[in-house]
Amino acid sequence: MTLDIDKLRAETPGTGTRIHLNNAGAALMPLPVYDAVKDHLDLELAIGGYEAQARAKAAFERTYDAIAELINCDRSEIALVENATVGWQMAFYGMRFETGDRILTVEAEYAANVIAYLQVAKRTGVKIDFVSSDDSGQMDVAALEKMIDDKVKLISVTHVPTNGGLINPAAEIGKVARKHGIPYLLDACQAVGQIPVDVEEIGCDMLSVTGRKYLRGPRGTGFLYVRKGFMEQLEPPFLDMHGAEWISIDQYEMRDDARRFENWEFNVAAVIGLGVAVDYLLDLGKNPPPASALSPRPHGKNSPLCPQSRCRISARRRAGSLLSPMQKNPPMKLKPCSPGKPSMSPLPTSPAPVTILRNEDWKAW
Amino acid sequence: MTLDIDKLRAETPGTGTRIHLNNAGAALMPLPVYDAVKDHLDLELAIGGYEAQARAKAAFERTYDAIAELINCDRSEIALVENATVGWQMAFYGMRFETGDRILTVEAEYAANVIAYLQVAKRTGVKIDFVSSDDSGQMDVAALEKMIDDKVKLISVTHVPTNGGLINPAAEIGKVARKHGIPYLLDACQAVGQIPVDVEEIGCDMLSVTGRKYLRGPRGTGFLYVRKGFMEQLEPPFLDMHGAEWISIDQYEMRDDARRFENWEFNVAAVIGLGVAVDYLLDLGKNPPPASALSPRPHGKNSPLCPQSRCRISARRRAGSLLSPMQKNPPMKLKPCSPGKPSMSPLPTSPAPVTILRNEDWKAW
Repeated sequence: MTLDIDKLRAETPGTGTRIHLNNAGAALMPLPVYDAVKDHLDLELAIGGYEAQARAKAAFERTYDAIAELINCDRSEIALVENATVGWQMAFYGMRFETGDRILTVEAEYAANVIAYLQVAKRTGVKIDFVSSDDSGQMDVAALEKMIDDKVKLISVTHVPTNGGLINPAAEIGKVARKHGIPYLLDACQAVGQIPVDVEEIGCDMLSVTGRKYLRGPRGTGFLYVRKGFMEQLEPPFLDMHGAEWISIDQYEMRDDARRFENWEFNVAAVIGLGVAVDYLLDLGKNPPPASALSPRPHGKNSPLCPQSRCRISARRRAGSLLSPMQKNPPMKLKPCSPGKPSMSPLPTSPAPVTILRNEDWKAW
Repeated sequence: MTLDIDKLRAETPGTGTRIHLNNAGAALMPLPVYDAVKDHLDLELAIGGYEAQARAKAAFERTYDAIAELINCDRSEIALVENATVGWQMAFYGMRFETGDRILTVEAEYAANVIAYLQVAKRTGVKIDFVSSDDSGQMDVAALEKMIDDKVKLISVTHVPTNGGLINPAAEIGKVARKHGIPYLLDACQAVGQIPVDVEEIGCDMLSVTGRKYLRGPRGTGFLYVRKGFMEQLEPPFLDMHGAEWISIDQYEMRDDARRFENWEFNVAAVIGLGVAVDYLLDLGKNPPPASALSPRPHGKNSPLCPQSRCRISARRRAGSLLSPMQKNPPMKLKPCSPGKPSMSPLPTSPAPVTILRNEDWKAW
C-alpha cells in the first residue's frame, strides 16, 4: 500500500527534530498514542485511578482485540504484561524441565534469554543446545531437524535479534516444531510491527512482544500470546487474585484464558496507549514499513550516516534499521554525515546502540 | 505537624469534584506527580523513549533515594517493579521450600498472597499455617511465638489489609522473626504512605509496596525492599540482562544489589512520577495524614456518609479510610448523605469497594 509519509511524519513530532533510528530501543510515539495516554492520565487526575479505569473499560479491552487482529489469534490468547521480557519470562519459566531435557535455540539468541536458560539449567539440569546458523546467519532449519530427539522439550527462538538485521525463519522452524510436537516459544520483540507476524502461519505456541519498539506504543507495555490448546501445559510462574480465584481455604481456580499470566495492577494509561498504537498500525495495513521509514534511510546512498557507520547485514531477509556496525567492539557510535548534500540531514541522530553478543559461536554475525 | 489542607486540596484537583475515599484502590494523584509524568511523556514524544530516559537519569535515580529515605534503608536495597504484587512475588517465589516446611501468616491475609502460598504448597509441599488473631483482629503475637519451630521457614504478613482498617503489629512480629532467625516478608501495600514504616524498626527482610495507593503515585508502579544481608538467601524467580550479566557461554553473574529483582524495561515516566510522589510525601513529613484527610472524614459525626455506610473498625490500631461496612455481603455501596448540613457534601463519592475474604476464620473481622 502507498503511505502518506508527510502525514505520518506530521503525526510523529519527533521526526522534526532528529533522525531517530533507535526503533529497536524505543521508537517515536505517534501523536494518537501520546494523546490517548495523556487523556487517561487527565482522567485519573480528575476522578481517581480506579474510577478512570472503570470509565475507560472499552478502550482497555480494545487493546486485546487490536492485538488479536494484528497477530491473528483470539483475544483470550493474549495476556497484557509490562514488557516483552515479562511476557517471555511468564511463558519460559512456566515450562517444566527435568535433568537431561534439552532446549534448542539459535546462535544469535538474545542475551537475556540465554541468562534465563542458564538459570533454569542450574535449577533443573536442562541442557541448552545452540542450533548452528547457515551462511546468512539465520538458524539452519535442516540442522535443527537433525538435532531433534525425544529429549527436546522446547524450541526457543528470537525472531529478529536486536542487532544485525537478521530475520530468523520463524515459520520454517514452526513446521519442525509442529511435526515433532515440541513446544515453540518465539521472542518477537523486534518483529511485531516491523514485519508481518501471524501466529497461525508461524505455528508458535507462545510469542512475546514489546509495545515500545516497532509498535510505537508507550514504554512499560507488552504482551504474551499463548495458544489456547497449549495453555494447560504451562504453569504460570506467579499467580495472584487476578489470574486465579480463591475458592476455598486450600484451593484456587485459575482463569481459563491467557490472563492467568497477568497480574492485578496495570498502568492503564499505557495499556490504552498500546491499543491505540496497534490500531494505528492496523490502519496502515498489517504489512507496514518499519518506523525507520519516517527517517531518511540509514543504508544505501541516501543514508544520512557517514560511510563508516553504515551497516553490514548478513541475513537472507533483512529487518529495517537494525544496525550491526562493521566494528564490533567497543560499541560504535553512529554519526550523521556533515550536512551539505540534499540527502543528508543536519539533524541529530539517535542511533541504535550496539550490544556485544557473548556467544562464542557468533561468527555468523 | 500542621498541614495546609487548602494548599493540599488545591494541588489535588480531584478533590474539587468528588469525595474520594478509594485510596486503598488508587488515590488521587497530586499535581506535581501528574506534571512529572506528563513532562516525561512530552520528552519521549519529542526525542524518543531511550533518549528521554538518558536525559532524565537523575530524576529516575532519585526515586530510589526518595524511597530509601522514606522507609529507612539503603538505595541498593530497593528494586523498582511494576506494582506491589510483582514485588511481593519476586520475593516470595524467590524463597526455597521443601516438603514439611511451614509458612506462618495472618488470618486477615490478602487473598492474592494466599493463592500464591497454595500454588507453592502444591509445588513444594510447604504447609501454610494461619496464626490466630486476638480480639481486636490483629495477629496474636503470643500465638505466633508458640507456633515457631524449626520447620518455620517464613513469616509472611499483610501489614494493613485492603479492607477493615486493621493494622497488624509489624514490629512485634519482627522481633519474633529476628529472635528465631526466620525470614520475614511484609506486604506493606496499604501501609507505606499511610502510616510510618521503618524497615529497621520493623525488622523485616522483604517488604513490598505499591505506588498508586497511599503514596499517591502513578498506576503501574511499586517497589520491593530486600535487606542487604538477606539478599543472597533469595534466588530471583526470573533473571534477565538487567539483573545479571552474561559473562561466558555457560555463566552469568547477578548484580549485587536489589535491582537483580527488576527487569530491563520500565515505564520511565511512571517511575519518575513515583519518585515525585514520595518526595511530595517526604515534604509533608514522614508521618503524614492519610490521603483521605483531603476529603471530609468518612467516620464520625462529620462524616459525609449516611450512617448505615459508616464503618465498624475492629482493630487496636486503625488505618484511615479502609472501610469495613457492617453488612458483609453483598459488597455494600457507600452513599454520601443528602446535602444540607455544612459538614455533608453533595459531591459524588468514590467508596472503597469491599471484597469478601474466603478464609473461614475471618470471624475476627
